[in-house]
Amino acid sequence: MKLGELAKQLDCPAEGDLGIDILGLAALSEAGPGELSFLDSEKHLHLLKSTRATALILPPTFAAPGVPCLRSEQPRLTFARALALFYPPRRPAPGIHPTAVLGRNVRLGEGVYLGPHTVVGDDVEIGEGAIVYANCTLYDDVQIGARTLIHANCVVHERTRIGADCVLQAGAVIGAEGHGFVPMADGSWHRMPQVGHVVIEDGVEVGANSTVDRPATGVTRLGRGTKLDNLVMVGHGCQIDENCMLIAQVGLGGGVKIGRNVVLAGQVGVADHVSIGERTVATAKTGIPGNIEAGALVSGYPAIPHNIWLRASAVLRKLPELHQSVRDLQRRLAALQQRLDT
Amino acid sequence: MKLGELAKQLDCPAEGDLGIDILGLAALSEAGPGELSFLDSEKHLHLLKSTRATALILPPTFAAPGVPCLRSEQPRLTFARALALFYPPRRPAPGIHPTAVLGRNVRLGEGVYLGPHTVVGDDVEIGEGAIVYANCTLYDDVQIGARTLIHANCVVHERTRIGADCVLQAGAVIGAEGHGFVPMADGSWHRMPQVGHVVIEDGVEVGANSTVDRPATGVTRLGRGTKLDNLVMVGHGCQIDENCMLIAQVGLGGGVKIGRNVVLAGQVGVADHVSIGERTVATAKTGIPGNIEAGALVSGYPAIPHNIWLRASAVLRKLPELHQSVRDLQRRLAALQQRLDT
Amino acid sequence: MKLGELAKQLDCPAEGDLGIDILGLAALSEAGPGELSFLDSEKHLHLLKSTRATALILPPTFAAPGVPCLRSEQPRLTFARALALFYPPRRPAPGIHPTAVLGRNVRLGEGVYLGPHTVVGDDVEIGEGAIVYANCTLYDDVQIGARTLIHANCVVHERTRIGADCVLQAGAVIGAEGHGFVPMADGSWHRMPQVGHVVIEDGVEVGANSTVDRPATGVTRLGRGTKLDNLVMVGHGCQIDENCMLIAQVGLGGGVKIGRNVVLAGQVGVADHVSIGERTVATAKTGIPGNIEAGALVSGYPAIPHNIWLRASAVLRKLPELHQSVRDLQRRLAALQQRLDT
Repeated sequence: MKLGELAKQLDCPAEGDLGIDILGLAALSEAGPGELSFLDSEKHLHLLKSTRATALILPPTFAAPGVPCLRSEQPRLTFARALALFYPPRRPAPGIHPTAVLGRNVRLGEGVYLGPHTVVGDDVEIGEGAIVYANCTLYDDVQIGARTLIHANCVVHERTRIGADCVLQAGAVIGAEGHGFVPMADGSWHRMPQVGHVVIEDGVEVGANSTVDRPATGVTRLGRGTKLDNLVMVGHGCQIDENCMLIAQVGLGGGVKIGRNVVLAGQVGVADHVSIGERTVATAKTGIPGNIEAGALVSGYPAIPHNIWLRASAVLRKLPELHQSVRDLQRRLAALQQRLDT
Repeated sequence: MKLGELAKQLDCPAEGDLGIDILGLAALSEAGPGELSFLDSEKHLHLLKSTRATALILPPTFAAPGVPCLRSEQPRLTFARALALFYPPRRPAPGIHPTAVLGRNVRLGEGVYLGPHTVVGDDVEIGEGAIVYANCTLYDDVQIGARTLIHANCVVHERTRIGADCVLQAGAVIGAEGHGFVPMADGSWHRMPQVGHVVIEDGVEVGANSTVDRPATGVTRLGRGTKLDNLVMVGHGCQIDENCMLIAQVGLGGGVKIGRNVVLAGQVGVADHVSIGERTVATAKTGIPGNIEAGALVSGYPAIPHNIWLRASAVLRKLPELHQSVRDLQRRLAALQQRLDT
Repeated sequence: MKLGELAKQLDCPAEGDLGIDILGLAALSEAGPGELSFLDSEKHLHLLKSTRATALILPPTFAAPGVPCLRSEQPRLTFARALALFYPPRRPAPGIHPTAVLGRNVRLGEGVYLGPHTVVGDDVEIGEGAIVYANCTLYDDVQIGARTLIHANCVVHERTRIGADCVLQAGAVIGAEGHGFVPMADGSWHRMPQVGHVVIEDGVEVGANSTVDRPATGVTRLGRGTKLDNLVMVGHGCQIDENCMLIAQVGLGGGVKIGRNVVLAGQVGVADHVSIGERTVATAKTGIPGNIEAGALVSGYPAIPHNIWLRASAVLRKLPELHQSVRDLQRRLAALQQRLDT
């Protein structure tokens, strides 16, 4: 594609030779001849010197580079759109594979795809243009919204409701029984039936091999536009608001409440019934045992404000010296006292 | 169902109008008209004022509420039983789906269900009333006990023995090769064959996408009544005694020994060959590098007694000030010494 | 098998009665009559007294035990080889199961096995002797090398390249979309298309239910001989060199670079774009927020040198006393100053 044509499709002002051919897209440090890349941070300006990219997407404020460029207020977003133009996702043609097994009273919208060996229970409804890849299992009474994409080998349990334009990456398990047990006098555990269900709103994404459990009663909810990475665990009865981001291996106990636009970095853990206010960010490996107010930035276990954690961590590695200093002080002070006493 | 009828089936004393209709069950804060709920802790007594529940299950010692109630020494357990009465689990009718693939010498008990696209290897034995949902794979020489329920897309490897009344949630992998390798002089890793197998005793539950590995020799064992949550990793050769509880994302190294009634909260990690005494509890994210005696309550990494960890954590956030205080002391003490010397 | 025959096949010097029958192999503490075991560390010499093993594999330098033995410089390696002799892995006979579903232009090498209900996309190439167990899904344009073994219910996404002699344990997901999103002004997240792919070199092993994501552009690479345990997460665009060892539940952010022979113990986390030099070892639960040089041994979060972490951890549990000591010092020093002033 000519750079000029790309500029037009992306609706970006362009500079330099618009007649050059763009053959592909790549990150700045890996781009080669014929490839378009982008830069959106002054931090990486030094990479401009060594890049072999043929063209660049740059913010309007950056100096003109030696190569043709597209200008964008959001170069990363424009790059994402260019990727989608260049490499349109390959989707299967609509149709029900002959090896798919469907239960009674399954209602399929227009243009649905059910891959080989998919298994669909009774009373399931799948919206128009939805895609269910091979070897997935949908239990009874599941609803899947329009254009939602379920990758291979996922399991969606009974009564789950999934909205439109969602993505389940491969191996995700939605709506399994929550881990609820009643402790008995003899030390054994009595199963608490989990008769609730999971509700996933529009535009949610769940990562590969992640699990979202259903509760004893009521619902577990993932709010509109929330994104879960791989191997995330959402316990029974959690309520996650819109546009949250849960990075890989995050674990939420039961009944956790999370406000909108919260970001939990990798391997964060949240205890049962904790509430986290909107826009809060927890850095990687943070452990959250109690409620967190809105707009906080927390780290450590137990979680404390990030700036305090940074300073405490700096001292932590000096603890042996600190310990020694205190002992020295005790000795010196005792010596001083003795000197005064005598 | 009339409240009186429910009281009879649950064998509970009842108070108030036993003729009212119970339409459903719900948690205290979410219950609406027609719904039965429960309360078992004085901590939540304040919720009684605002609940819209039509009837309640209460301990005998709680004051009579303004609504009809059932009395129980264990309201949570009675609620669990009421849930099972109200919402009996929907089980598939016995039978072998025509798309199931069975190996040679497969012995099936009465009333077994094998779902669509299940794959069963040679020499497999499945006990009466057991249920294997869609897209599961059982390798050769597996034994599954009576009434055990294996949810969709699980994998059970060769030689695994699973007892009666167990549950594998979806996507669990039982008996994969343990992570055993011999380090070679050239830096590569030589596979240690894993010819042992996994034994899961009666009444065990394994969570969604959890993994239990088989060892080089001997067995990996999950004791009777033990419950594993989602995304738990049990390394090769672990010996877990009865009625343990491993919450989500717990990871056990190889050869870990755990006594009965141990509780490991979410994201706890245990190093290779560690022994943990019975009834020990480790709070979330605890890292256990060495043996722990019976009946301990531990936290932190490395694990220390919980009460010490609580106090140490409180100081941790004051470390920057503590560090500054020590410097101040050093300065003041030096000044004092100088003053005395001159 | 006679011990003498075994010695010959393992090419080891032998001592004692070579005519005894070896019926099986077991760990030293579990071996019984007829069984061969091994010992490779002086630390476990005391186990020799109580073992019931009939024969042993020992280093040349260990004193002659009371039973016949094989001598080896690497008893553990010799034991691994003996296990492979005694319990040769049971592999399915080559062939394509009639329920396998193959796309267009699938090229299969000699002796390939495709199990029941496997699903293979278009333009897939599978090398000679490769094994794909039941219920696996391979998307389009995947390449699998010779003799590679893919256990049941794995998913391999489009454009993935897997080398020869690799093993994917059950439930692994290779090449799912990396977790890349562009933050939008309204708080929502815009999908960054992930058009790159995953390259897995020869001799790599990926554990059960682990996930290796593909990047926006370029490749995610697992170097030759690298071994991943279960439930490991490798983010999009990671570059892992040869012979690394990632233990269970390790999580790598996006774009992490790891040199050869690095060992990350269980539940270690590494932040986005961090570089770790070759031969570095991180102990369990370490959190690595920034670059680490080659040959380091690190622990804690944030990661610090292991020996410092050990000493700091020892002080950590004494923090409450340390805090009290500093307060005492402040009081005593103030009293001393007052005494001098008056």
